[in-house]
Amino acid sequence: MDKTWYQQKLAKPIMDKLAITVMEYCEVLAKYTQTPGQMDRRYLTTEHKATNEQIRTWADESHLQNWQDQAGNQWVRLQANSDTEQRVILGSHTDTVPNGGKYDGILGVVAPLVLIKYFADNGIGFDFHVDVVGFGDEEGSRFGATLLGSSAISGKWISKWRELTDENGVSLAQAMCDFALDVSKVSEAQIDSNHVIAYVELHIEQGPVLEEKGLPISAVNGIAGARRFSITLEGKAGHAGTVPMASRQDALVSACQWMVELNQAARKSIADDYPVLATVGKLDVYPGGVNVIPGCVNLSLDVRSINDGARDAFIACSIERLEALASESGLSFKLKETHNAQAVSCEPNVTNAMVEVVEQITGVPLALTSGAGHDAMVLAEIVPTTMLFMRCKEGISHNPKESVDVEDVAVSLSALTMFINEKVAI
Amino acid sequence: MDKTWYQQKLAKPIMDKLAITVMEYCEVLAKYTQTPGQMDRRYLTTEHKATNEQIRTWADESHLQNWQDQAGNQWVRLQANSDTEQRVILGSHTDTVPNGGKYDGILGVVAPLVLIKYFADNGIGFDFHVDVVGFGDEEGSRFGATLLGSSAISGKWISKWRELTDENGVSLAQAMCDFALDVSKVSEAQIDSNHVIAYVELHIEQGPVLEEKGLPISAVNGIAGARRFSITLEGKAGHAGTVPMASRQDALVSACQWMVELNQAARKSIADDYPVLATVGKLDVYPGGVNVIPGCVNLSLDVRSINDGARDAFIACSIERLEALASESGLSFKLKETHNAQAVSCEPNVTNAMVEVVEQITGVPLALTSGAGHDAMVLAEIVPTTMLFMRCKEGISHNPKESVDVEDVAVSLSALTMFINEKVAI
Repeated sequence: MDKTWYQQKLAKPIMDKLAITVMEYCEVLAKYTQTPGQMDRRYLTTEHKATNEQIRTWADESHLQNWQDQAGNQWVRLQANSDTEQRVILGSHTDTVPNGGKYDGILGVVAPLVLIKYFADNGIGFDFHVDVVGFGDEEGSRFGATLLGSSAISGKWISKWRELTDENGVSLAQAMCDFALDVSKVSEAQIDSNHVIAYVELHIEQGPVLEEKGLPISAVNGIAGARRFSITLEGKAGHAGTVPMASRQDALVSACQWMVELNQAARKSIADDYPVLATVGKLDVYPGGVNVIPGCVNLSLDVRSINDGARDAFIACSIERLEALASESGLSFKLKETHNAQAVSCEPNVTNAMVEVVEQITGVPLALTSGAGHDAMVLAEIVPTTMLFMRCKEGISHNPKESVDVEDVAVSLSALTMFINEKVAI
Repeated sequence: MDKTWYQQKLAKPIMDKLAITVMEYCEVLAKYTQTPGQMDRRYLTTEHKATNEQIRTWADESHLQNWQDQAGNQWVRLQANSDTEQRVILGSHTDTVPNGGKYDGILGVVAPLVLIKYFADNGIGFDFHVDVVGFGDEEGSRFGATLLGSSAISGKWISKWRELTDENGVSLAQAMCDFALDVSKVSEAQIDSNHVIAYVELHIEQGPVLEEKGLPISAVNGIAGARRFSITLEGKAGHAGTVPMASRQDALVSACQWMVELNQAARKSIADDYPVLATVGKLDVYPGGVNVIPGCVNLSLDVRSINDGARDAFIACSIERLEALASESGLSFKLKETHNAQAVSCEPNVTNAMVEVVEQITGVPLALTSGAGHDAMVLAEIVPTTMLFMRCKEGISHNPKESVDVEDVAVSLSALTMFINEKVAI
């Protein structure tokens, strides 16, 4: 293989030019939205179909092999130089949340697509296939269940999903039919994990750490596991003017005391081997009158860590504290677990390789933990998986304000190129 | 005047019997409700009319003079023994909140009514009229504005009120017309304050203090002034999994910290000359997603004290602390005052007289501060006013669970009797 082009300081002018194309492609795909004025593209819709068609058009321009699988995922292949089934898969998802952004998911499909188009156009090839995949569903915006696309290729598709319905009552089975797919053939989308050298997912960070550190990219060492709870604290409602402070069983005051301590404990955990993130995002107060002492509070708790043990110990400790506070104030409480996802580690070899790439480019061997879920979570169960995070403006995501710099896209393209050239193709 | 009956240890058997009648009358009036299965009687409704008619029927039984004034308030008079215009007024309101109780307001009308019926039936009279009044509106349940009945007799009626509408769009002027009243004649309801020796309002405490102290009754030294605020704290929403604890601007966490301190400060104020009550009864979190860091919190603040200066100092201090907390965490906040009522003191002479009565009966010279508003607030501006609080079960009010003991009613009747006999009729 001719590495000349690549060895010229990662061919910065080339990457800069490709990055502009990536940005243009993101703009083109942003037009395929079901809600005018918003970015809103869901699984198995007309807009999903148009996106896949557009990707195929771009692939055809460079004479790249391409196909849509039985789950509606779109594939593009840079054929190996030799007769092999070995493949590196680069990809992410093409769906969005309602009123989402233009880069969450899409960037991780379009950037490697632009890259292999360049490879194809310039006669660059490897001893393995370089496949780009755009998963039709990761967000779960249409049918509730998430990660449908990557689950299909990983053999994790659950047959009951065919009965899921969207907000208009259309079943997943029917939606597949309308998409010219057959839900009974979804298993044909499954790939043979033995042939996969690595799955690499480029994704915007969706958090502020890279921006804070002034770095464009990082490797990712794993995806945090989240547990969620719904907590109800019951005290006693009363008249704000007639119940003395010392006689109150104010559910909100006790909840506040607990939330303050929860936050302090999570902030302190940054010094631990495995820090946790703890968030109360939802809180309802009953009866909710301006002049009524809160008799009841219902709140959500979301706790995440890359280490399930650390996370569970933190939760146990927090709940113990809640018990104590409730008992001190004569309140009762109920706790219900609503979600429990285990942490996923990225495969050490490919992740170390990505850390080396990141260090070579940025000077900092940084690996972050992803707090958000990704297709990589599913792929990690069957093939060596890692991720590349790219800085996004103010860490904003799932929002029309999602924004990236074209310079960072160029750096990401360099990183993917270096990973393939130096870490896989040896 | 023959005090024989009264000097026999407050004639306990008589009071016990009258208390049973009071309870029976409360049950009868509880049937006049506009919402089946609930206690719900509002100003100028069919049920208000039926209540006034029932009171007149009871008055007629004992040949007591009675009239409905131009504001729809119902009056019953125990005529003075001599030719005088001097009067003692005993009363409270006959309306309720929606889904309210059977005693809030009504008790303070029915108990003195039963008392003067007994006086009349037994030839007991005084050198002044003893008037019982049932105000048609105190709660403001129908037209939003509160204390309409007592405002009318105090000359505090605001002419613009005629335009207020109920939930069906019926104006107050129209409702008066339907009630066979004329809104342009409301001023005729105004009484001459020069003729009023005292206004005394018996009311359930609506708080837990008497129950906690094991006492059936207390005097009332004043009604706390309340100020209310709507407070908005703005931080920055973010993904619960991707924003490190140290990088967050979580509006809820800062609000919790502040509420904890607010509560502590109010609890400490019990040692001050003028304690305050501080309540956050309403709190909304935005955007309110289980996995989203709260970017904004909107909450209500209600602060009360019998001393406006103490209350205002407490508020200033709390807001200063909120400013500091917001600034520490990079949040902004907005504050809007939504309500400001000055504290009202009961008149010292009549209040001291009531304290003596309470001490004579219970052994404890207790005077409480009312945290809730009452008709007495309005009357206090024009005539010597005091109140008598009666214990209610668990302090519950504005609730179908509102409950009183017949024994406490008997004690309250004794106190009102002693007040009239020993403190007014000298």
